[in-house]
Amino acid sequence: MAGNTFGSTFKVTTFGESHGEALGGIIDGCPAGLKINFDAIQTEMQRRKPGQSKIVTQRKEPDAVKFLSGIFEGKTTGTPIGFVIENTNQKSKDYSHIKDTYRPSHADYTYDKKYGIRDYRGGGRSSARETASRVAAGAIAKQLLSKIKINAFVSSVGDIFIDKPYQDLDFTKIESNDIRCPDTPTAKKMITRINEIKKAGDTIGGTITCVLQNVPVGLGEPVFDKLHAQLGKAMLSINAVKGFEFGSGFCGAKMKGSEHNDLFNEDGTTKSNLSGGIQGGISNGMDIYFRVAFKPVATIMQKQETINSKGELTQMQGKGRHDPCVVPRAVPIVEAMAALVLADFWLLNKMSKL
Amino acid sequence: MAGNTFGSTFKVTTFGESHGEALGGIIDGCPAGLKINFDAIQTEMQRRKPGQSKIVTQRKEPDAVKFLSGIFEGKTTGTPIGFVIENTNQKSKDYSHIKDTYRPSHADYTYDKKYGIRDYRGGGRSSARETASRVAAGAIAKQLLSKIKINAFVSSVGDIFIDKPYQDLDFTKIESNDIRCPDTPTAKKMITRINEIKKAGDTIGGTITCVLQNVPVGLGEPVFDKLHAQLGKAMLSINAVKGFEFGSGFCGAKMKGSEHNDLFNEDGTTKSNLSGGIQGGISNGMDIYFRVAFKPVATIMQKQETINSKGELTQMQGKGRHDPCVVPRAVPIVEAMAALVLADFWLLNKMSKL
Amino acid sequence: MAGNTFGSTFKVTTFGESHGEALGGIIDGCPAGLKINFDAIQTEMQRRKPGQSKIVTQRKEPDAVKFLSGIFEGKTTGTPIGFVIENTNQKSKDYSHIKDTYRPSHADYTYDKKYGIRDYRGGGRSSARETASRVAAGAIAKQLLSKIKINAFVSSVGDIFIDKPYQDLDFTKIESNDIRCPDTPTAKKMITRINEIKKAGDTIGGTITCVLQNVPVGLGEPVFDKLHAQLGKAMLSINAVKGFEFGSGFCGAKMKGSEHNDLFNEDGTTKSNLSGGIQGGISNGMDIYFRVAFKPVATIMQKQETINSKGELTQMQGKGRHDPCVVPRAVPIVEAMAALVLADFWLLNKMSKL
Amino acid sequence: MAGNTFGSTFKVTTFGESHGEALGGIIDGCPAGLKINFDAIQTEMQRRKPGQSKIVTQRKEPDAVKFLSGIFEGKTTGTPIGFVIENTNQKSKDYSHIKDTYRPSHADYTYDKKYGIRDYRGGGRSSARETASRVAAGAIAKQLLSKIKINAFVSSVGDIFIDKPYQDLDFTKIESNDIRCPDTPTAKKMITRINEIKKAGDTIGGTITCVLQNVPVGLGEPVFDKLHAQLGKAMLSINAVKGFEFGSGFCGAKMKGSEHNDLFNEDGTTKSNLSGGIQGGISNGMDIYFRVAFKPVATIMQKQETINSKGELTQMQGKGRHDPCVVPRAVPIVEAMAALVLADFWLLNKMSKL
Repeated sequence: MAGNTFGSTFKVTTFGESHGEALGGIIDGCPAGLKINFDAIQTEMQRRKPGQSKIVTQRKEPDAVKFLSGIFEGKTTGTPIGFVIENTNQKSKDYSHIKDTYRPSHADYTYDKKYGIRDYRGGGRSSARETASRVAAGAIAKQLLSKIKINAFVSSVGDIFIDKPYQDLDFTKIESNDIRCPDTPTAKKMITRINEIKKAGDTIGGTITCVLQNVPVGLGEPVFDKLHAQLGKAMLSINAVKGFEFGSGFCGAKMKGSEHNDLFNEDGTTKSNLSGGIQGGISNGMDIYFRVAFKPVATIMQKQETINSKGELTQMQGKGRHDPCVVPRAVPIVEAMAALVLADFWLLNKMSKL
Repeated sequence: MAGNTFGSTFKVTTFGESHGEALGGIIDGCPAGLKINFDAIQTEMQRRKPGQSKIVTQRKEPDAVKFLSGIFEGKTTGTPIGFVIENTNQKSKDYSHIKDTYRPSHADYTYDKKYGIRDYRGGGRSSARETASRVAAGAIAKQLLSKIKINAFVSSVGDIFIDKPYQDLDFTKIESNDIRCPDTPTAKKMITRINEIKKAGDTIGGTITCVLQNVPVGLGEPVFDKLHAQLGKAMLSINAVKGFEFGSGFCGAKMKGSEHNDLFNEDGTTKSNLSGGIQGGISNGMDIYFRVAFKPVATIMQKQETINSKGELTQMQGKGRHDPCVVPRAVPIVEAMAALVLADFWLLNKMSKL
Repeated sequence: MAGNTFGSTFKVTTFGESHGEALGGIIDGCPAGLKINFDAIQTEMQRRKPGQSKIVTQRKEPDAVKFLSGIFEGKTTGTPIGFVIENTNQKSKDYSHIKDTYRPSHADYTYDKKYGIRDYRGGGRSSARETASRVAAGAIAKQLLSKIKINAFVSSVGDIFIDKPYQDLDFTKIESNDIRCPDTPTAKKMITRINEIKKAGDTIGGTITCVLQNVPVGLGEPVFDKLHAQLGKAMLSINAVKGFEFGSGFCGAKMKGSEHNDLFNEDGTTKSNLSGGIQGGISNGMDIYFRVAFKPVATIMQKQETINSKGELTQMQGKGRHDPCVVPRAVPIVEAMAALVLADFWLLNKMSKL
Repeated sequence: MAGNTFGSTFKVTTFGESHGEALGGIIDGCPAGLKINFDAIQTEMQRRKPGQSKIVTQRKEPDAVKFLSGIFEGKTTGTPIGFVIENTNQKSKDYSHIKDTYRPSHADYTYDKKYGIRDYRGGGRSSARETASRVAAGAIAKQLLSKIKINAFVSSVGDIFIDKPYQDLDFTKIESNDIRCPDTPTAKKMITRINEIKKAGDTIGGTITCVLQNVPVGLGEPVFDKLHAQLGKAMLSINAVKGFEFGSGFCGAKMKGSEHNDLFNEDGTTKSNLSGGIQGGISNGMDIYFRVAFKPVATIMQKQETINSKGELTQMQGKGRHDPCVVPRAVPIVEAMAALVLADFWLLNKMSKL
């Protein structure tokens, strides 16, 4: 597989390490004739960017996407769209202390064992910095699917949860606070919590909920490439993700069929939507919603025992600029990956019937 | 994508509808020289087979796998392994009542809209009968990876959960009861519960936990084809699955980094294993464990309101032979899909370094 | 790659050895709603079938294609089409003499070295019998593309060539003689030649020309999956093929630009067509034509020196039923592979622009 | 397919238009631990580069490859290798005359019809400038396969052919003249011929022969991804290629089996090698050799009648800097594509047997 390509028709391949020259990627398969809004792309980049608020890492990267091909006079031409994002703020010295040391719950150990060599600076390829390329590609997918509404938001931080169904939330408020939680009172609690955690040199996990609206009926390619299976893969491929559920999710596993079934209205919509907008792996036109679990960031500002590449015990402490909680910055990444999944299936669905 | 192939090097493509002539598939990429134990394959088929106990559907299929190619004098030859499983017990008449009616929370409506045509008999391609082919292919993957231990079991039915960590369970007891729960007292409660549900003409959801042991370090292909991302996709592609979590999963989203980090021992193993055996998308040699949520079976033996293909309201009631709870039969399917994922990554890992 | 799948959207995967239980395949990605003409499929099978005339091998196989899935009430459903072709006339005894001996210019040696094991009966997977599955799949592709005319014919046997441009030939005469050459006087010479060769226990090579008409503008996916590149790969994947050229081909390499350029008419057609209907890897609406070179069949009825698996020199002589010249039976195979290429690109082209 | 990726394990995806910002690509799947010789890469770039001699186009591009990722401290890390090649010498004004005009035997018309939009500057994506990315990627593949000798050379220009078998040529002389023909007297004739052609404002075709030596036994993945089928596709994907033949090629189609068969020596080598080093689609350890036909460059410095995008007849004449004969610069491209094919199969072959 060689693991760095996502999608089969709207295909995105990314490259780049945290502290290398640049990140970037190629989108192959974007249909010709799409007018590109470059400002909208940069807005997405800003949402993911470090240093955007006090509760995220203070590493500063302009994260400007430079397009190198595939767009001519503002429109896509059907040829591959190459793009780069320069790493302008590489502080490689910050990372010399981990050159020979494996950080706990990071990918240092596994990369070293798998590849026999590792770019240790900032985690190299395993750094979440790689997701900048995903956000850039996803921003184009969003423009391709302009009729579909994609809204992700932070639904929990630690044990602080939004206690309302998503239908009662105002998505226009997602960007109104640093945590990207559309429920203002909950948002405040989350921010307070993150500040406490940060002071303690610790980190904390959280969840993101994503809602996809106006998705046409018919997206998804059973039996292996079901819409929710591909969404699940997309989300699980994001750094720090530990779980994915859609529709009724894990709660659905406690229910009875008579409670869980979504009865139809005459127009094909359903009265309830525990299915989460997908039946048999194919979108049914109802809202698609899913929830993604993120573990706490592994780099903490506390001393931890660990080992070095010789298998000797040693102590280490996080340095540099790290997020105390990954979820606010992960919101645009979740949306980007959802957009990539939808774009791929939207194209594939053109071939379903004569 | 055309959705019916899983894997990139150990590639499985399946075909077949619930009430068509036969199911089957092709395994392309199985290395040459593997001695095949045909009895072991058939044992896996028996575990998935309908009619094996009182708490599963009484549809009777011998589910004998017939291999047509790729195996010579008992060994794989490196050429594609074609196989078929005949549908000997097709009761197509049972399904005439759903010819023009969309069953709630089934794939009838979405298949009809996507393809404009639908083999309505028993759900056609969307039936879980398709998973027979997966179990057959997975049984070969298991033999390829004979050193890896793959154990799935039912960890909950409705709100009845095993309340022990998997380390305290005896996996040799999984097959000792009809529900495939290795904790005998819990198993009894689950069976009682399913029998009640069945009498009420209802169905119930549940979860399956799967543990992969002795997995070599290095499996997984970041950044998109992370080991857990592909496991998640594999599981989510199984009928009725609503959620997937590995390691600390959704609980991990409530934790702090100082609690969650897995500290190393000098030999590279870790003291705790909230990572679930995977770091940065690559296996680290520790146990891999994950949990899969299954919704209640949509076909219930109670009257439900629904619509037909003309958009008219109508009533329907499940007929035929259906499972009141899908999880006991899904255990070998979960194992089979896990085996397919591991086989693929095991082959891919041969190419990681010089 | 695992090598047994062709195409990316109209995907065909085949399995089967010459003397195994059965051959077959899966077509994944055929759009739903295509009415299938089963007689037309069987007609194609008859054209490829051994024993159809005196100048081909007398091995007798009914080569009946049995469809197992993906077709319901005579129409494709969008789900994978599984099919099998039984091997009813396996004379495995004929082949015991090659169990440990490598036939010259066959794949015995390379399969043994690559896989360490080999189904020696009739060449196993390397036998041209595998192409029966291609013809079956290609017959469905032809029906999908019913407006495109696909005509292949024998253009040379040894040094006997048709000395006319294809425009002067009557394609309805292709099936009028055993050699499938539409030019009757040349056909007669070819047949005479083959009969001489056969009497001498020898074999002879030949070429097939294929003409694709009414191909819509726009098929082909540069820069790697150019229409002619994929046609070339398709043809070169057929047993015994040594060369491929399209349009002006190797002759074009001797020409000057001022001679070779195809000038436009006002409607976008071209006055000449040395480009062979393809410019920049994309069909331009003109006739596509190409030529395929087949080497002489390696199995001859003369004694040859060779080696066995221990590296000892030994003598052998072809036994059983073999073709003195492969081209007449290869005509439907060339057409089938061309149809598979066109079907794939026809589907892909639906995604080229908004 | 989306057409811009080559290979399945050593996967190369390219982007870039002739007059866009930059060209480049991503190599995904190069094993970790390969020491990179950057000078050797640049040497390959120089061989393909325009302006290197008097008989090629005088467009001047430094064609410096800038690597952005996947290489750390001089070695590959197993992560994707991103690279860019800037377009420093864009003379977009040269091409304004073709903005609305379709050049005969170019891809202008087909790109316009397929995509509905076209970057007309220098042919955009359809320009052979794209092959710079292939040469960069191929240079890395060459280093991965350092034991394999890959030598391509010009074997004909127009009707001037080398009249010796490749075994009689000294490959160290390939780079000794501007035409890259290792037979000095023939090289001189070719150069004289090209100069005449150039003076006449015309262009001429030619062929390249490529010889692959020390290829291990076992490369190739039948039945569709045969070694020669993939080589053929690779070559046919190069701009201006019209034909491909390997081993005996089209001549083999005139031969008898008793003449054509390659008899074995006791060590598994063969006395003759009309098979061209490949049997059944798998390398047999003998030299692999093939021949590629290139048409004359379509841009000529003579007036030609053509049409514009409105379908009106108009006259045009080539401007700017163009090659009178493409073959000398195509030599490194042929080698690069051969290297990519071999690298892919070399990796795949690691999975053939237990």
